[in-house]
Amino acid sequence: MMNDCLKIPRVNRLSCFERFIQINCVECEIKMVKAQLYIYAKSFNGFPQPEDLVLVEEELPALKDGEYLAEAVYLSVDPYMRGYAGALKIGVPFIGGQVALIRESKNPKFPVGKYCTGSFGWRTHTIANGVPQQSDRLKMDQYVLPDFKGLPPSLGLGVLGMPGNTAYFGFLDICKPKPEETVVITGAAGAVGSHVGQIAKLKGCKVIGIAGSDDKGKWLTNELNFDHFINYKTQNVKKALREIAPKGVDCYFDNVGGEISTTIINQMNLFGRISVCGAISGYNETRPTAGVVQGSMALKQLKMEGFIVTRWQDRWFEGIDQNLKWIQEGKIKYRETVTDGFENMFQAFTDMLKGVNYGKAIVRVKTLVK
Amino acid sequence: MMNDCLKIPRVNRLSCFERFIQINCVECEIKMVKAQLYIYAKSFNGFPQPEDLVLVEEELPALKDGEYLAEAVYLSVDPYMRGYAGALKIGVPFIGGQVALIRESKNPKFPVGKYCTGSFGWRTHTIANGVPQQSDRLKMDQYVLPDFKGLPPSLGLGVLGMPGNTAYFGFLDICKPKPEETVVITGAAGAVGSHVGQIAKLKGCKVIGIAGSDDKGKWLTNELNFDHFINYKTQNVKKALREIAPKGVDCYFDNVGGEISTTIINQMNLFGRISVCGAISGYNETRPTAGVVQGSMALKQLKMEGFIVTRWQDRWFEGIDQNLKWIQEGKIKYRETVTDGFENMFQAFTDMLKGVNYGKAIVRVKTLVK
Repeated sequence: MMNDCLKIPRVNRLSCFERFIQINCVECEIKMVKAQLYIYAKSFNGFPQPEDLVLVEEELPALKDGEYLAEAVYLSVDPYMRGYAGALKIGVPFIGGQVALIRESKNPKFPVGKYCTGSFGWRTHTIANGVPQQSDRLKMDQYVLPDFKGLPPSLGLGVLGMPGNTAYFGFLDICKPKPEETVVITGAAGAVGSHVGQIAKLKGCKVIGIAGSDDKGKWLTNELNFDHFINYKTQNVKKALREIAPKGVDCYFDNVGGEISTTIINQMNLFGRISVCGAISGYNETRPTAGVVQGSMALKQLKMEGFIVTRWQDRWFEGIDQNLKWIQEGKIKYRETVTDGFENMFQAFTDMLKGVNYGKAIVRVKTLVK
Repeated sequence: MMNDCLKIPRVNRLSCFERFIQINCVECEIKMVKAQLYIYAKSFNGFPQPEDLVLVEEELPALKDGEYLAEAVYLSVDPYMRGYAGALKIGVPFIGGQVALIRESKNPKFPVGKYCTGSFGWRTHTIANGVPQQSDRLKMDQYVLPDFKGLPPSLGLGVLGMPGNTAYFGFLDICKPKPEETVVITGAAGAVGSHVGQIAKLKGCKVIGIAGSDDKGKWLTNELNFDHFINYKTQNVKKALREIAPKGVDCYFDNVGGEISTTIINQMNLFGRISVCGAISGYNETRPTAGVVQGSMALKQLKMEGFIVTRWQDRWFEGIDQNLKWIQEGKIKYRETVTDGFENMFQAFTDMLKGVNYGKAIVRVKTLVK
């Protein structure tokens, strides 16, 4: 059985940006869907360059049994994409999660008209079958978004999705915070950091956020009730932390790695807990800077554990349910930084890497959003 | 009640090395014991210098109820002493454990003629009462040595004492090694490292030791049955490790920290376990070198936990019993590097820091050993 028209080449480099197109091949009369997608064309060397990702188009075959066609509505740009790029092969579609509308379906678990989420990569249209296709390390399940009780589906990429669960499990399970303890968070104004800080407040902790602009600091302290803010670009973190936390730090949620992390770890208390979520400070470095942590780790019997949120796949909806409940109760606030247009994926990605975003950075595929 | 003679000054700088002296003050007729001890006179700045520690003598008062007089037979020199020095106040006796003979006693738990161990510091004679006197962080219990089944009491400072329990608990409890897994150990020819590797072999692991001389490597592979050895001074650790462990590293017992640790951690497998025992590579650095580990930690979901062996104080004799059993069964071998003479403490200490020793480095107080 022939599923697609072989007379039109599968992959054509786009000379200019084109929108979603459904065409009928006059010769063979098979309905075809054209997907636009970004190919990882050149290894990132230091900070990503526009030519590293190339936008191409691809004709999708007809659906087989068990498959469905997902059309991207919101796409995610996350720090991990830079971190993982080193493990990607050249020529593969670039990685990432999206919230997509199910347009066609031969899979009863993914009905037409529903929003779903999956690690489909940077592409407008995807044929999926419910089984993760990306890197083994991610193994992010595809699922129809649960009932968000009136909250927007884009949150499936943020506070009610991967970053929300990263905060929920990565902080609570690894740091095991106790009331009155002092918690430090780097990348505090990002999707995960801003969420971790609010959970830490709910648990009765003293919360110190570290980020790179005073405006972010105002958001954290005025709106999210963080107790303190340190601007690592203008302040001496070592000194500021000593003043704000004279009794030392008990939990450290580490999004950045590098020298700032070493400084914080050196001010931790005996039996402190460190959750290593990411290392964005080093992702774009060709040669990482100083940061020997083992001295403090041993002397203070610290625990450090790196994690990928998918290890809690079996408790996934527990995380989403709890975060949703907290939002409905007004206990957790969220913020999204939205870039419009699939053609602006790269810009949104590098803005996020530079820390332009507050909360979750996402891309909205304009034409599909009412 | 006057316990000591006030007519002789308590602390006199020694102009030359003198041996243990018991004198009777003719005027007040109270028997006195003179202790020799090393005072931490100047902060270590980089590698320890002879003038940083000053040998003095002190007259000890008569025993009160609950006290006993311990005379050093073997003294320990350990890497942690350099690591902890930064937290010491100037003017205090320098820290360290010893195996001592109980000479007098008003404490029924510490009978005369028995060997005991305690963190008495670098001193020939100590009045103790069974309660730890040193830094809160150490809190090393004093106890009469258990029956070593004919093995020498010096092992109470090594394989049947703190380093032995460091290997036993710090490796098994934190790394939780499984058969067939690959275990890397830095500082592999030291007291702890050489022991950890043998335990790892007992658990069915593939064991790779890293140390700084080929002669040490021969000892590890020929006598202790380590599977592989890497000389970090002459080999490219990154390349050598990739060849020896092409499937990656599962457990890393880290004695050194710094750049070598980063190299190893970057070659670990998903869900690897790292036990941070020490960071000797950094102890003598005024400015630590590169070593950002968080990227690998997060990506591979690694666990890192620093520890001080005293956290297993309540299971202490379980460790000693097991190690003793292994030695008796010929499954664990030990080696001691012995320096003679209390006056050579500093030399033994700095030799150990330079890695001259094989296995446990101790100092024997000559006059007391038969």
